Amino acid sequence: MRKRLSIEQYLEGIKSGNKLILSQAITLIESTRPADEKRAAALMQQLPAPGYGSSCIKIGITGVPGVGKSTFIDTFGSHLIQNGQRIAILSIDPSSQKTRGSILGDKTRMEKLAGNPAAYVRPSPSGSTLGGVAHKTHETILLCEAAGFDCVIVETVGVGQSETMVKDMVDFFLLLMLAGGGDELQGIKRGIMEMADAIVIHKADGDYVKAAKKARVNYQNALHLFPPNPNNWIPPVQLCSSYENTGIGEVWETITQYIVQMRGNGFLEANRRTQDALWFENLLQHQLLQKLYQSPKLHQQIMESKELLTQEKTNVPAVVSEILRNL
Amino acid sequence: MRKRLSIEQYLEGIKSGNKLILSQAITLIESTRPADEKRAAALMQQLPAPGYGSSCIKIGITGVPGVGKSTFIDTFGSHLIQNGQRIAILSIDPSSQKTRGSILGDKTRMEKLAGNPAAYVRPSPSGSTLGGVAHKTHETILLCEAAGFDCVIVETVGVGQSETMVKDMVDFFLLLMLAGGGDELQGIKRGIMEMADAIVIHKADGDYVKAAKKARVNYQNALHLFPPNPNNWIPPVQLCSSYENTGIGEVWETITQYIVQMRGNGFLEANRRTQDALWFENLLQHQLLQKLYQSPKLHQQIMESKELLTQEKTNVPAVVSEILRNL
Repeated sequence: MRKRLSIEQYLEGIKSGNKLILSQAITLIESTRPADEKRAAALMQQLPAPGYGSSCIKIGITGVPGVGKSTFIDTFGSHLIQNGQRIAILSIDPSSQKTRGSILGDKTRMEKLAGNPAAYVRPSPSGSTLGGVAHKTHETILLCEAAGFDCVIVETVGVGQSETMVKDMVDFFLLLMLAGGGDELQGIKRGIMEMADAIVIHKADGDYVKAAKKARVNYQNALHLFPPNPNNWIPPVQLCSSYENTGIGEVWETITQYIVQMRGNGFLEANRRTQDALWFENLLQHQLLQKLYQSPKLHQQIMESKELLTQEKTNVPAVVSEILRNL
Repeated sequence: MRKRLSIEQYLEGIKSGNKLILSQAITLIESTRPADEKRAAALMQQLPAPGYGSSCIKIGITGVPGVGKSTFIDTFGSHLIQNGQRIAILSIDPSSQKTRGSILGDKTRMEKLAGNPAAYVRPSPSGSTLGGVAHKTHETILLCEAAGFDCVIVETVGVGQSETMVKDMVDFFLLLMLAGGGDELQGIKRGIMEMADAIVIHKADGDYVKAAKKARVNYQNALHLFPPNPNNWIPPVQLCSSYENTGIGEVWETITQYIVQMRGNGFLEANRRTQDALWFENLLQHQLLQKLYQSPKLHQQIMESKELLTQEKTNVPAVVSEILRNL
């Protein structure tokens, strides 16, 4: 058995950028054992507040399976490291609760980053609910920020609700697409396109360059249908190839330009404040309910109510107000 | 001042199909005055359980502004009444919290139904949150069911989250579209198309018939991209015109066919049970939180936590666990 670290050891290890201790801290945060949850709370309590002006840039990257997210992140991340940055990569994949194996393979799928001391790759947390996963990811970002990473990349699978959640955690949201096939064919929900701060058409190499250029026009036209962003940012559509290593630097330039602009007009900080306020509300509700639901009496009442509903003896508002009255 | 009715008077009035008393009951349900909320709870408690086999058909109808929802519902509703049905029409419009006036004009926008004794039209409830509005609409459906309506139509504006909520309250979900312009141009979210049990292309008359027929093919192709429904229903795409009164009967035939089929394979009842289980969970959480949030101590703590976050003195999980510890 591994030696249990004290909260101070965790804090010191994280602050010094020790990746092993960071990993252990994230595991502690993700644990649902009551003793671990207490220690995790104590750790978060002592973690320094990053501040809304933090220089750590959080980037969300999404795209459907097959778009080449891992390859892109591998190449893009290597570019950042060459620029002197330290980066952390986290992934959210709600389906991974069933197939954790494939996600744990992330490290090997990112060959360039795998052994790089300036990179930290962490697979998807397990969790009984997507909401639970979101809170853990949020906390993991805070831990990575405290560990001094310049950039935290959060990867999602691009087919569900997880994108909305990630959009609410990051400074910049990047959508990876492929040429050929409208967004219907690629299974991307239209709502996700609306969230993107940039669309990057991946695998724009060889015979596909022509199709990619055509797709760029289509996506640009589609983006024009959306109402303008309150921050006055016009999401660009860019081409890149991880295989030929082209267009990668341009993506980073776009992000840098965005950050500079949003720092200037105050949107970056305002957005982070709004995100925190929303997270505060969600986490509070989540934990209040979790605490209430631990009551065996409430549990018993819920069971009885469900039985009454199943037997068609009453209606939903009636059983709910009965539960509230007995509380 | 209007005389206050007793719960028994409400129940009797509703059961006898008295529309004035039904309206007063819905107003009571929608009220946020504590005394009214108590009486509303007592009313719901005594309302008979409709049963999952109830013959009352709930239909959700959505479409963006301009698609002609009111005109369609006016013509479609008249058709149902001619078939001997009594119908209730409710609307959900989250934006109506600001512009209630326009919604209150519904009755006049539905000219044919306006004076018809077999029709009941109720505008959108006001509510501080969309979730709150959803619960009230759910309860209003129960009241209409108890008032003996054969069909309850719930209308939404087709541009937001309200559709997902309505989908979870109704037996059949109908999407109204126009010919000309892809779904992007009409502002319909792709997710809404996925929820539809039928797509009806409205205003398919005169010069627009050709375009409508072309649109039908496009929508049919788009629907084929979605995974098959678990209930084996293939959503048809139909044309209709309220102006020429064509295709209206066919829409009702589709719905009837759907209901017969889903009764046969057990999906109708199973779906209603699932919907009730979901509503139970949501309403319970909503009311538990509402009750907790009434505590001045919690309110005070929330204020202080927000202040600490604003001053960048701590992080979200830290303040939340502090609140939970002091509870």
